[in-house]
Amino acid sequence: MAVTDTVTGVEVHDVRFPTSRELTGSDAMNPDPDYSAAYVVLRTAAGGRGHGLCFTIGRGNDVVCAAVRALAPYVTGRPAPATAADLAALHRDLTHDSQLRWLGPEKGVAHMAAGALVNAAWDLAATGAGLPVWAFLAAMSPEDLVSLVDFRYLSDALTPDDALAILRAAEPGRAARAARLKAEGYPAYTTSPGWLGHDDATLVRLARQAVADGFRQIKLKVGADLDDDLRRLRLARETVGPGVRIAVDANQRWDVADAVRWMTELAPYEPYWIEEPTSPDDVLGHAAVRSGQPVRVATGEHAANRVVFKQLLQAGAVDFVQIDAARVAGVNENVAILLLAAKYGVPVCPHAGGVGLCELVQHLAMFDYVAVSGTRRDRVIEYVDHLHEHFTDPAVVTGGRYRAPTAPGFSARMKPLSVAAYRFPDGPVWRAGPDGDPDLDPGLDPEPDPTGGQEVPE
Amino acid sequence: MAVTDTVTGVEVHDVRFPTSRELTGSDAMNPDPDYSAAYVVLRTAAGGRGHGLCFTIGRGNDVVCAAVRALAPYVTGRPAPATAADLAALHRDLTHDSQLRWLGPEKGVAHMAAGALVNAAWDLAATGAGLPVWAFLAAMSPEDLVSLVDFRYLSDALTPDDALAILRAAEPGRAARAARLKAEGYPAYTTSPGWLGHDDATLVRLARQAVADGFRQIKLKVGADLDDDLRRLRLARETVGPGVRIAVDANQRWDVADAVRWMTELAPYEPYWIEEPTSPDDVLGHAAVRSGQPVRVATGEHAANRVVFKQLLQAGAVDFVQIDAARVAGVNENVAILLLAAKYGVPVCPHAGGVGLCELVQHLAMFDYVAVSGTRRDRVIEYVDHLHEHFTDPAVVTGGRYRAPTAPGFSARMKPLSVAAYRFPDGPVWRAGPDGDPDLDPGLDPEPDPTGGQEVPE
Repeated sequence: MAVTDTVTGVEVHDVRFPTSRELTGSDAMNPDPDYSAAYVVLRTAAGGRGHGLCFTIGRGNDVVCAAVRALAPYVTGRPAPATAADLAALHRDLTHDSQLRWLGPEKGVAHMAAGALVNAAWDLAATGAGLPVWAFLAAMSPEDLVSLVDFRYLSDALTPDDALAILRAAEPGRAARAARLKAEGYPAYTTSPGWLGHDDATLVRLARQAVADGFRQIKLKVGADLDDDLRRLRLARETVGPGVRIAVDANQRWDVADAVRWMTELAPYEPYWIEEPTSPDDVLGHAAVRSGQPVRVATGEHAANRVVFKQLLQAGAVDFVQIDAARVAGVNENVAILLLAAKYGVPVCPHAGGVGLCELVQHLAMFDYVAVSGTRRDRVIEYVDHLHEHFTDPAVVTGGRYRAPTAPGFSARMKPLSVAAYRFPDGPVWRAGPDGDPDLDPGLDPEPDPTGGQEVPE
Repeated sequence: MAVTDTVTGVEVHDVRFPTSRELTGSDAMNPDPDYSAAYVVLRTAAGGRGHGLCFTIGRGNDVVCAAVRALAPYVTGRPAPATAADLAALHRDLTHDSQLRWLGPEKGVAHMAAGALVNAAWDLAATGAGLPVWAFLAAMSPEDLVSLVDFRYLSDALTPDDALAILRAAEPGRAARAARLKAEGYPAYTTSPGWLGHDDATLVRLARQAVADGFRQIKLKVGADLDDDLRRLRLARETVGPGVRIAVDANQRWDVADAVRWMTELAPYEPYWIEEPTSPDDVLGHAAVRSGQPVRVATGEHAANRVVFKQLLQAGAVDFVQIDAARVAGVNENVAILLLAAKYGVPVCPHAGGVGLCELVQHLAMFDYVAVSGTRRDRVIEYVDHLHEHFTDPAVVTGGRYRAPTAPGFSARMKPLSVAAYRFPDGPVWRAGPDGDPDLDPGLDPEPDPTGGQEVPE
């Protein structure tokens, strides 16, 4: 008889990187982000650990930590999740507590916190199985995968039978696709050239570098000033030539008419998609933008939950579905979204960047290829080359492609030294201030103190 | 020259009422709510106070308190809001901080917390003007009212010019309508008979009582069991007769097909509306429910923001717009929603109940009558007769009508003794446990300790 392991505690750490000091990550709506994570560690009696995170851009990261603590009692004390059934039950408990549900329902801080915990449980379970999450998912039967999904509010667009049919159709080719994935990787695009904070010379230099590095798609932030955008897009197009895709991203800056007018102006430079043209809640607005101008529409990094994705697909509002690993309620809800996209035949091109989002979301795109959509056609994962050094199993992109993770788990574990150094507000980087020398070495534990994080007792 | 008052601090109190002990408030999705409030008090240097709250149903109320604390620095230290311009600026700062916006955007915990602070500022400003909030709003010029609204993402449905035209059209009749409002009040309906936790005898008794009390509309919770709902609706209809409206409320229980099937079955008993048939995020789902069965559709208490309301109206998804005073970002966003509803000619029937929602939302419906829609036709405010005793200026409903508040402010001030007694987890009611005698009198301050609340320093 198997000995049951138990979750003995949940830690949550408020980790913030002072990225606003360099304007990395600046766009039309987010001029000075401090890329941050509400970083979660589950611990089990047998010494297992599961790591997850919620990405934020600074202020308010503490609110997400508070939400994690409010949800922690649903995790602490339960058997360590190991199977599809365990992970489905945990996801359900975290999203359907009748009192906590009032805080969303299924959106915003409470939902993001649930996602961090669900993802930490997936890290724990996949680590226990000795598989990276993409392979752990791709090893599950179609029936187990269907059991992960909460179909509430989806049945007018996707039923369990629909989902089963999609997964069964993809089952025969799984092994061959997994082998190709390991050999070839998964296409990436890079946003590094296109931040609004870059001057033109930097844009040109980084665009040229991106092509040299093997990327076939780059992305530019737009939306603050039309003349600037026209000039920057022209420069980028001249630099990369006609064969490299240039996506543009307005980060929700526009109303519908603004988006139509602006993109009509930019269209001659052949942007590959316009991302987040308007409010992420505005399904009908995205549909109007899509029909009102010639550039394809992408959105999803801020879509609150599967119900919003369902409607974007039902309304024909999007050409690309941009899942985010850490905004919805974790792997389970993203499996639902992958299945919805497959049902409607819309490619999934994940959002990444931030802190740890590349590490997490690569697993979901790779699972989609191996076991859901069965294709990489028109699909590409965002890549931003920063902050990976803080992870023990960082995303690896070479030749413009994500390489399939081989280490067990979700690639979500941060280095203990990084957690200690960047903990807000008391870590040495923050104590030292913008001009100080954080003097990172002395006095830092090589492993984080299990009780030093804000541990929630059993 | 006027002396400028300054906001010196923000308190937030986690106040919870153990309503789950009596099953008051039970419905198909919320079996055991503990009606709660993240209760906010602004204090000014000149001794002014502004009161606001966010309603929750128990667990997670602390997370909203954490969000209020994260937002408090935007309030503390600024001039005490007094004018439309001040209130517009505060609303903008609380909803458009570039880092905090990531937590929503404009939804969930962070947005609700912003709403509590915005509403507290309205309480402060109206109190300073010596007017109840409904009259304070109704005394503003159309131009000032338009200036309160954040039109971002609205312009495809409502422009500032549209809003100005609506408000100017209603301006000539304001004084006459205010006089009628003071004389006649505003129609109410009661949900007290219809909680799922009531047995049939209680349902019949309370329905009969409601009619005797002058209500022309009652509401029943449905959605857990169709046979039960058929029996309860039949009993209610037999009790109140054909001339009294019976609304039904599924509290988001169904998928689209369930809602269509269920309401087709209930239709012979002539329910007046079906409220929250499905996910509050599902604009297209509500449109499908509306077109798929004969009963009118109402929703809005959980609609996250003005963008969702905009789409519900654009899609023809609702017959009634149910604003909530404490889910969106306060008075300013509700003015936007009232204007959207007026533009589309859809009546606003506010959600209330909970803790303090009747007190707050009555002001918005009365303002709508006096200065926006100009009519009470097909309009009615929800009323639930509990927890009003904890407010210093409780909502007054007599003869089935809300009486227009006359005291200055937003009716949002809780009695200090109630705040102290029900504070979670350390108030005497919670310390005593379900069977204990809280022994409320000894040791409680008659006024809350200004530093005893979780005060956020300047």
